[in-house]
Amino acid sequence: MKVAVMGYGTVGSGVVEVIESHSNIIPKRIGGDTLEVAHILDLRDFPNDPHKDIFTKDFNDILNDPEVKIVAETMGGVNPAFDFTMKLLKAGKSVVTSNKELVAQKGLELLQAAEESGANYLIEASVGGGIPIIRPLTQCLAANNIEGIAGILNGTTNFILTMMIEKGMSFDEALKIAQEKGYAEKDPTADVEGHDACRKVCILASLAFGKHVYPSQVSAEGITNISLEDVSYINSVNGVIKLLGQIKYISDDKIAAFVSPAVVYNGSQLASVKDVFNAVLVRGDAVGDVCFYGAGAGKLPTASAVVADIIDCAKHTERKKIFGWGAGDEDYVVDYKSTIKMPFYVRANAGESEISAKFDDVKFLSRTGQPSNEVAFITDIMTENELTQRLEGVDVINTIKVTNY
Amino acid sequence: MKVAVMGYGTVGSGVVEVIESHSNIIPKRIGGDTLEVAHILDLRDFPNDPHKDIFTKDFNDILNDPEVKIVAETMGGVNPAFDFTMKLLKAGKSVVTSNKELVAQKGLELLQAAEESGANYLIEASVGGGIPIIRPLTQCLAANNIEGIAGILNGTTNFILTMMIEKGMSFDEALKIAQEKGYAEKDPTADVEGHDACRKVCILASLAFGKHVYPSQVSAEGITNISLEDVSYINSVNGVIKLLGQIKYISDDKIAAFVSPAVVYNGSQLASVKDVFNAVLVRGDAVGDVCFYGAGAGKLPTASAVVADIIDCAKHTERKKIFGWGAGDEDYVVDYKSTIKMPFYVRANAGESEISAKFDDVKFLSRTGQPSNEVAFITDIMTENELTQRLEGVDVINTIKVTNY
Repeated sequence: MKVAVMGYGTVGSGVVEVIESHSNIIPKRIGGDTLEVAHILDLRDFPNDPHKDIFTKDFNDILNDPEVKIVAETMGGVNPAFDFTMKLLKAGKSVVTSNKELVAQKGLELLQAAEESGANYLIEASVGGGIPIIRPLTQCLAANNIEGIAGILNGTTNFILTMMIEKGMSFDEALKIAQEKGYAEKDPTADVEGHDACRKVCILASLAFGKHVYPSQVSAEGITNISLEDVSYINSVNGVIKLLGQIKYISDDKIAAFVSPAVVYNGSQLASVKDVFNAVLVRGDAVGDVCFYGAGAGKLPTASAVVADIIDCAKHTERKKIFGWGAGDEDYVVDYKSTIKMPFYVRANAGESEISAKFDDVKFLSRTGQPSNEVAFITDIMTENELTQRLEGVDVINTIKVTNY
Repeated sequence: MKVAVMGYGTVGSGVVEVIESHSNIIPKRIGGDTLEVAHILDLRDFPNDPHKDIFTKDFNDILNDPEVKIVAETMGGVNPAFDFTMKLLKAGKSVVTSNKELVAQKGLELLQAAEESGANYLIEASVGGGIPIIRPLTQCLAANNIEGIAGILNGTTNFILTMMIEKGMSFDEALKIAQEKGYAEKDPTADVEGHDACRKVCILASLAFGKHVYPSQVSAEGITNISLEDVSYINSVNGVIKLLGQIKYISDDKIAAFVSPAVVYNGSQLASVKDVFNAVLVRGDAVGDVCFYGAGAGKLPTASAVVADIIDCAKHTERKKIFGWGAGDEDYVVDYKSTIKMPFYVRANAGESEISAKFDDVKFLSRTGQPSNEVAFITDIMTENELTQRLEGVDVINTIKVTNY
C-alpha cells in the first residue's frame, strides 16, 4: 500500500524511518499488506538522502496519485497544511497528522470533510507525541462520562520545572540547558508561555466532550513567573509545580479549560512525571482516574504514533472510523475565574496577621531563608476572582492554582 | 441493540449499571443505536433486583435469541464460561469478557472461533480492570517492536506491599486489612502467590508477541517471603518492592515471562503506583517507555472496560476487528533463570567479607537495627542460576530481582 509523507522535518523523517525499519511487523498489524513511501513532499533539498528519488516539491504529485490512499501530514503550522489536507480529504484520501496547531484551529472543518468523503482524519500524534491518548479516550473510555482531564502536555516546560525542583536551578539557567539539549527553541515563547499546551488542551477537550474548542477560548499562563522561592515553599508541603492543562466538565453546554502552573501534591501520578515526559490523567465517572505516561515529543516516539494511525487507516480502507466532534460556540468555554473553585498558593510581602484577617482558613508555609516580611500560604477553595478580591491591598508576589488531580 | 450479560456478580452487575446509567452517551459513541440488556444469565436468584424479568438460568435463552448479537461474559473461571463463549462465537455472536482465567487458558481457541465465524472476541477488561491497555498495545503501539513489558497487575498484593512500605505493617497485618476492606479474599492464595498476575502476564505476552502463552509456562513467585527488613534495606537505596509481571522479547521464537517481587527504584513510573492501583509499562523500540495507570479491579472500573468493548462490537457489527494471536509452543517461553541477566537484592546471615569473596562487585545496604551477622546487598547483573551458584554455602534469607523498568 502506497503512502505519502508531507514535511520531512524531525517527525516526517521519523515516519519514513519507522515505516522502513518496521517492515517486519507492519504487514502483520495491517493484515497482510506492506507500506511503501511513494512520495515525500518538502520544499527543501536533501541531496544526500537515500530517498531522493521520491522527493517532490509539488503537492499535486501526491493529490493526483491514485495509488496513494493515505498521507501523513507532518508539516506543522496552519498554512499550507490546511489547504493540502482539505484537498486530500475531499479527494477521498485519508490523512494522519502530528500537527496540533492545525487540529486545534481547523480540526472541525477537516473532520467534517473526512466524514463527507468517507476518508479518515486521524490525529493520535497531535497530543502527547507517542503516548496513546486519542484512542484510549475515544474507545476504551467510551462508557464513561468524563469529569475532567489534567495533563502535563509540554516537555520543554516540564524539563525546566524539573531542573528547578531537583537541581535548584533558576528558570533562566534551566531554559538555557533546555535550549542546549534541543528541547527548547531559540524563541521559547510557544512552550514557556503555555501556547503549545493550550493547543493540546483544545484537542483533548474537543474529543472528550464533543464540541470544538479553539485556542482563543482557553486562557494560557506560562511558567516564567515561577521562582525557586515558590518551588521551595511548595516542596515544604510535599508538592511540586507543574504546567498543567486542565479541562472540567460543567454541563453538556459548558466546560472550563485553562493552562497554568499548578501545585500537584506528591502521590498524584502527575507529580512523578519528570524531565521531558508528558502524562495525561483522565477522570471518568465509572473508571475513576486513569493516567497515560510517555515521551510527549521527539522524532521516533511521535513518528510511531503517526505510523500507528497509518496502520489503522490501512486496516479501515473501506470503512470510516466513527471519530470526531461537532461545532463549538462562543459561550461553550466558561470564564473559569468566576466559576471553578480550588485552593491557591499565594506568596506575598506581608505578615501572617494581615493574611489571617483576609482569609478564614489558610495554611502558612515556610522555607529556609524566608525573609521576615514574606509570607506564603495555601488558601481554602474559592474562585480566582474571589481570591483576587480578598488579596486587594496585599503586595502579592505570585499566586499558583492548586489542582485536585 | 440487544445485549446479554452472563454472570451477575460484581463485574456483571456493574456492566448492567454502566449500560443503564450511561444511556446519555452510549448512542453517540456507537453512532446512533442504544444498548438494551435483554437477558442476564445467573444460576442464583435475585428476587429484589429490578431486572428480575430478564434473568434466566438457561444459557439457551441467550444463544437462541436472534436479536442478541453481543454478549458480556463476566462469570469468571474456565467452566462453563468456555463452553458458553465457544457456542456464542460459533453462532456468530460477539463476546466481550473480563475473565482473565479463561482468556489465559483458552484465548487462542476462542479467538480462532471468532475469526472463523466473523464475530469479535474482545478482552480489554481481562487485564488491568478499567485501564486501557489491550487497545493501546495492539493499535497505538502497532508501529513498535515491543522490547518488554512490566506490570503491577494485582491490586491486592500492591495494597499489601504499600501498607508494608508506608505504614511499616507486617505482611500478616496488611493482609488482614486487605481482607477487611474486601480487597483480598478469605483464601488469598491466587493473589499473594502471584497466580492472578500470572494470567494477566500470559494475556499481555500473547498479545504483544503474537503467540499464546499459557500460565503453566510462566514462573510465578508471590510476596509471602517479603519482610519489613527487606523493605527497610531497599528503602535505603531509594527503592520499593513491587510484585511485577515481566515479559522480555528475546527473538521471534523466544520470550521470557515471569511474575515475582522486584526492586523498583523511585523515579520509575511503577514505583509511584500505590494501594490497589495497577500500571502497565510497555517499552517499544520507537516510542520508548509508555505507562498506563488506573484502577486494576473493582466493579465500575472493570465494567466500564467491558462496556467499552460492547460499544466497539456494536460499531463493528458487519466487520471483524483484526485482533488476536496464534498458537504458542512448548519451548517458546525460555527458562529465565538461565537466560535473563539482572541485578539481585540478597539478604543473608553472613559477613561482608564472606560476600565480597564470592562476588566481584556488590553494593552493601544497611538498616536501623541491623544485626551484626546480617548482610544485605545488591549484586552486579547476572542470571539467577549464576546467583544461586555464587551463593552456595551462604545462609541466604531472601533474594529479590531488581528490575530495569
